[in-house]
Amino acid sequence: MKQVAIGLDIGGTNTAIGVVDREGNVLYEKMPQLPTPQKKENPDGRMDISEKLVENFISLIASEIRVAIETVSKINPDLEVMGIGIGAPYANYYDGSIGITANLPFVSVVPLTELIKAKLPDISIVEVTNDANAAALGEMMYGGGIGMRNFVMITLGTGLGSGIIVNGDLVYGHDGLAGELGHVTVVPDGRDCGCGSKGHLETYCSATGIKRTVFELLAKTNNTESPLANVSFNEMTSKLVFDAAVQNDPIALEVFEITGEILGRSLADTVHYLSPEAIFLFGGPIAAGELLFRPTRESLERYVLPFYRNRIKVLPSKLKMGSAAIVGASALVWKEIDKRKS
Amino acid sequence: MKQVAIGLDIGGTNTAIGVVDREGNVLYEKMPQLPTPQKKENPDGRMDISEKLVENFISLIASEIRVAIETVSKINPDLEVMGIGIGAPYANYYDGSIGITANLPFVSVVPLTELIKAKLPDISIVEVTNDANAAALGEMMYGGGIGMRNFVMITLGTGLGSGIIVNGDLVYGHDGLAGELGHVTVVPDGRDCGCGSKGHLETYCSATGIKRTVFELLAKTNNTESPLANVSFNEMTSKLVFDAAVQNDPIALEVFEITGEILGRSLADTVHYLSPEAIFLFGGPIAAGELLFRPTRESLERYVLPFYRNRIKVLPSKLKMGSAAIVGASALVWKEIDKRKS
Repeated sequence: MKQVAIGLDIGGTNTAIGVVDREGNVLYEKMPQLPTPQKKENPDGRMDISEKLVENFISLIASEIRVAIETVSKINPDLEVMGIGIGAPYANYYDGSIGITANLPFVSVVPLTELIKAKLPDISIVEVTNDANAAALGEMMYGGGIGMRNFVMITLGTGLGSGIIVNGDLVYGHDGLAGELGHVTVVPDGRDCGCGSKGHLETYCSATGIKRTVFELLAKTNNTESPLANVSFNEMTSKLVFDAAVQNDPIALEVFEITGEILGRSLADTVHYLSPEAIFLFGGPIAAGELLFRPTRESLERYVLPFYRNRIKVLPSKLKMGSAAIVGASALVWKEIDKRKS
Repeated sequence: MKQVAIGLDIGGTNTAIGVVDREGNVLYEKMPQLPTPQKKENPDGRMDISEKLVENFISLIASEIRVAIETVSKINPDLEVMGIGIGAPYANYYDGSIGITANLPFVSVVPLTELIKAKLPDISIVEVTNDANAAALGEMMYGGGIGMRNFVMITLGTGLGSGIIVNGDLVYGHDGLAGELGHVTVVPDGRDCGCGSKGHLETYCSATGIKRTVFELLAKTNNTESPLANVSFNEMTSKLVFDAAVQNDPIALEVFEITGEILGRSLADTVHYLSPEAIFLFGGPIAAGELLFRPTRESLERYVLPFYRNRIKVLPSKLKMGSAAIVGASALVWKEIDKRKS
């Protein structure tokens, strides 16, 4: 029997579905990805998100999972589907729900695992956690975290997500919602955060944060020669900043210094909380490599208590960018099987 | 058989020794407490801390533990001593050592549990952890944390200590040194911290932090009528600030507002990390009651992500101030026995 798990990653724009084996090999991936339902506003400004939208989305997921299983079964006739693991923003592992978030269109809490189980009753394990938690599990099972029992995963994208591993297990906390490091305060009364508060880590250290720092520096220095001065706010990306830094653009270089300084200071706090063996960074901005990692490590070392110095590894994730989300989500299934055994 | 544990609390000034039963009752306490060895400087400025000092201190502890056991044995002839639990600053649970800290005179790492086992070979369990971790265990076994599996203990004294409970266990992290929340940055480039860094939580939120805020406000407002304006920096205590606040002194009242604002903001970060069921505050400053708790809770609610709102309890510790340290330290022994059983 070939044992596999379904990995499902519900993102703000697209939903990815894949079939992954116990070794983390992706045997099938739905391409193009499913569109995640989008927010729509009525002319009167109210959201028009009916139960029907949830119902249709779940039906679509279920039928695509069936297609995925059939496709892989053709190559592996003795396939055994062990379960479905799902990563989604503000997902709650304990009750299997997705909460209300700016990134998804649902206006009330969606009992996700319950709805999927009802559509696919022959699959007994259906687990959900937030996407960064899923990535942390993936890192532990298939990435740089193999053999580690205490580490922290930081995902840099539009925002900043995190998953915390303590004693070989994800930290969910009392409510199932632990690990929201994107929303720790790094600059009191600082930049506006999407959550409504100010000065949070993700407003400085994320793809969006990098972009905002560019414009802060353009405003401060009035540097018209930087190639970044020719790009609008909405067209700016962390990739453009990286390209400019490689060309020694002083604005771009300073952006990475500032990003690393703030990220390293915040990760020093992470060390004071958790004393991890390593901190993994994942996501688009880590393509900048040492431009980002060097100032981050230097800042972390400057801010940690002396007895932590030179002990904490800050490393790039070893997960592949493209498949990390579904591989991480599928890892939930194997983790659950291990838990039930013990 | 009456099973008991020895609780030992090594503080900067005094070392407390007690005999505690499984229910947390203190059957014996050494009074007056032993003096902890103090730092001495040679005329040339070098520290004179020989191995002899450690040797003498351990011998003294061992002989006092023997006295304690003999004394309790007279009332309970069938006494069974299950082990020794020790709380000490910068103590490492994993290797049983105390690190180098400003609060203790040792100039190299002391292999504490090894040295004590050598003196008391008939006691097989000798465990050490930092004092705030011990307090967190005490809170879980005998205090407000009974029945809780995820909470955080904050001890407010000269500094700010913390113990983190996740899934019913203390978080030690990879190096055994997790839970140093006193040293997270709350004001970038803020007040000097004893650790050499700046703007750490304990420089604002501790007995010392409260005192420093008084002098900041006296400087800022030039209020000569406050009773606090008649007290020198070295004579100021959080008790005097509390007394002035009860008399509606505006400086004292604002000190608690500021302390609560910063503590609540930092505890919101704690919630974002760990999603705890409760946060317990312990130590002298909590005698101020709602003067401290109200602004702390209000600030926490203001800074947490919406889905945590009105879910996190901020509570005074239920441990007795006088005996909390030895009761918490003794809890290490029962925890260890439970671990070995499972």
